[in-house]
Amino acid sequence: MDTSTLFAPHSRLSQQIAFLAEIDKLKDILRRSLVAGTGRRENSAEHSWHLALMALVLMEHSSTPDINQVRVLKMLLVHDVVEIDAGDTFCYDLTGNVTKAEREIAAATRIFALLPADQATEVRELWDEFEAGITPEARLAQAFDRLQPVLQNLRTEGHSWRKHGVTKDQVLVHNRKIGEMLPEIWAAVARQIELADQQGLFESVA
Amino acid sequence: MDTSTLFAPHSRLSQQIAFLAEIDKLKDILRRSLVAGTGRRENSAEHSWHLALMALVLMEHSSTPDINQVRVLKMLLVHDVVEIDAGDTFCYDLTGNVTKAEREIAAATRIFALLPADQATEVRELWDEFEAGITPEARLAQAFDRLQPVLQNLRTEGHSWRKHGVTKDQVLVHNRKIGEMLPEIWAAVARQIELADQQGLFESVA
Repeated sequence: MDTSTLFAPHSRLSQQIAFLAEIDKLKDILRRSLVAGTGRRENSAEHSWHLALMALVLMEHSSTPDINQVRVLKMLLVHDVVEIDAGDTFCYDLTGNVTKAEREIAAATRIFALLPADQATEVRELWDEFEAGITPEARLAQAFDRLQPVLQNLRTEGHSWRKHGVTKDQVLVHNRKIGEMLPEIWAAVARQIELADQQGLFESVA
Repeated sequence: MDTSTLFAPHSRLSQQIAFLAEIDKLKDILRRSLVAGTGRRENSAEHSWHLALMALVLMEHSSTPDINQVRVLKMLLVHDVVEIDAGDTFCYDLTGNVTKAEREIAAATRIFALLPADQATEVRELWDEFEAGITPEARLAQAFDRLQPVLQNLRTEGHSWRKHGVTKDQVLVHNRKIGEMLPEIWAAVARQIELADQQGLFESVA
């Protein structure tokens, strides 16, 4: 059944429950990264959960002090919801990234509008802030969003890099922004990427 | 590779990265509920993400005012991590629930201790608060944790109730605590459970 019909039509509750039912679909949006120790691709809902925990645990390493932790958490929880319509765009997919913004803005307009107007505005503002990547909170949230798949790749012998022919330089360039917000972490990760390259990690596989 | 080895042994970062790698396993802990529109069971990581969004959107319906939203969010993000060792115990499984607390406490002791001591204490306190269910924040977090699978069941024609022979009375008794914190929502949901029962939803299926 459509659980939003449990509540009066156009009521706040019917709108909120409709939104919560809709976002169930994020559990079906597959990313390129694997869940470590399995052959299966990670979905964007469990990825978002992992990012939120990462933010809780690693916030202290931010190069910028006085970060509003709650805004970072909320941005990470909502940032991928647009993928329900727009799909997950692999960050090294040049063609896909040409149309990514347009597809995701259309998705944000449709999906967030399921909520009551004040909450739709609040969530849209969080999403816009994340996408703009200007505030320290957004830049830190973006750094976590890049760090998590890099760590997943290192834990799975570079699975999605190798599978899609991504080069070491692409990884270092795309992820260098991690270093602006999380310099100590990025220094160690970048060193490992260089080392892994010397060990042949970036040689393409079939 | 073990990504915690990127950092000095016993450093905060090596401990934090080890914890973040360990909790990847929560994505493999399957619950009884289905992801709607699929035949697949929901895992506890994506469930935790869904709960966090539910808390953001439905907090305003709490019967208790002045709830600390951040504590509710954090409790929901960490509450199921213990299932990595203890497994997901179906709430209507009487036998499993006899040993649940013991298994989960052992899991909390092992998993949270991967973190630096101060963070281990913070996360353990959040988990203990959730489990005790005494503070308004913990009671509200528990209410969301019960509400989400009820809504998933209503959206999937009672899949996990039917599959495991759960009766209408079991559902109403187990979930009545939702009504203490979210009375308007529970009233509508309980009415629907009665109605669904009259329509044969709780008749067991093979």
